[in-house]
Amino acid sequence: MLHLRPATATDVSVILELIRELAIYEREPDAVVATEADLLRDGFGERPAFQVLLAEWRDPSEVAERPARVVGFAFYFYAYSTWVGRESLHLEDLFVLPSHRGRGIGLGLMRALARIAVDRGCRRFQWQVLDWNTPAIRFYESLGARVLGEWQSVRMEGEALEALAKGGESEG
Amino acid sequence: MLHLRPATATDVSVILELIRELAIYEREPDAVVATEADLLRDGFGERPAFQVLLAEWRDPSEVAERPARVVGFAFYFYAYSTWVGRESLHLEDLFVLPSHRGRGIGLGLMRALARIAVDRGCRRFQWQVLDWNTPAIRFYESLGARVLGEWQSVRMEGEALEALAKGGESEG
Repeated sequence: MLHLRPATATDVSVILELIRELAIYEREPDAVVATEADLLRDGFGERPAFQVLLAEWRDPSEVAERPARVVGFAFYFYAYSTWVGRESLHLEDLFVLPSHRGRGIGLGLMRALARIAVDRGCRRFQWQVLDWNTPAIRFYESLGARVLGEWQSVRMEGEALEALAKGGESEG
Repeated sequence: MLHLRPATATDVSVILELIRELAIYEREPDAVVATEADLLRDGFGERPAFQVLLAEWRDPSEVAERPARVVGFAFYFYAYSTWVGRESLHLEDLFVLPSHRGRGIGLGLMRALARIAVDRGCRRFQWQVLDWNTPAIRFYESLGARVLGEWQSVRMEGEALEALAKGGESEG
């Protein structure tokens, strides 16, 4: 049985585990440098930079007293659309443990996010997908989402970012 | 001469004009449904959903008493990277009026944003670009940014979003 709940500060270790599992699935196992302290600082203070929805699962055969297991998560925050003039719900990470797929857990998370978006007045629910992740693309399209082929993501980090930030100082 | 300044509530009409100019450039002239009231509500209240940097330009020949003209803008907010465990500066819109290109105004805005990102502790500065916008892609790459080809943007809105949000209610 599926139960969804917002994560709290005591969940940072399971959130970080799920972030790592997803990075492995995305073929970037060493990409995660985030720590529990980072997530605690940024997600559970006075002005959280993100929200997390946890999916807990309990098999009907399990005794009810045993704590349900966290088997998936949705990590999201609010972006802004200048064309729409509203916040958009931006889904950064969605993941269900391979052992628990095919039970509607991903759908349950997506539906809960759509409700959160609508309740907040967002007109858009958006995310990104790796172009080789055909099962995910099919799933999203089955929900009525559109893959926007012409937008490319651009990123600057590390030395390039430092150099650009410092570059103008000597120019006066 | 270029002068950059953060926008205030009194700038919403010029911000909306620039958003519209950019939408025309992006071949979506009718896409902007945002109003000044939307921008005022979401950007200049207690918890702004976005920030705007305005580029003002004054020709050396112009009398100093005449107000400088707003000729470009950068519209941004903070996203979150689960891998890095930090906020990322997300640039949503960057635009310089065609009449004022080639004067380093875009570079000035990008440099100011890089500084804001570094000062806030962001490890990433990110944005999106249309795949046919070769001049922009060349400019970004000249700054050391990388175009991430394998990430596709996905969006759900309108009836699909409403349907997903409502879909689960009858399932109990």
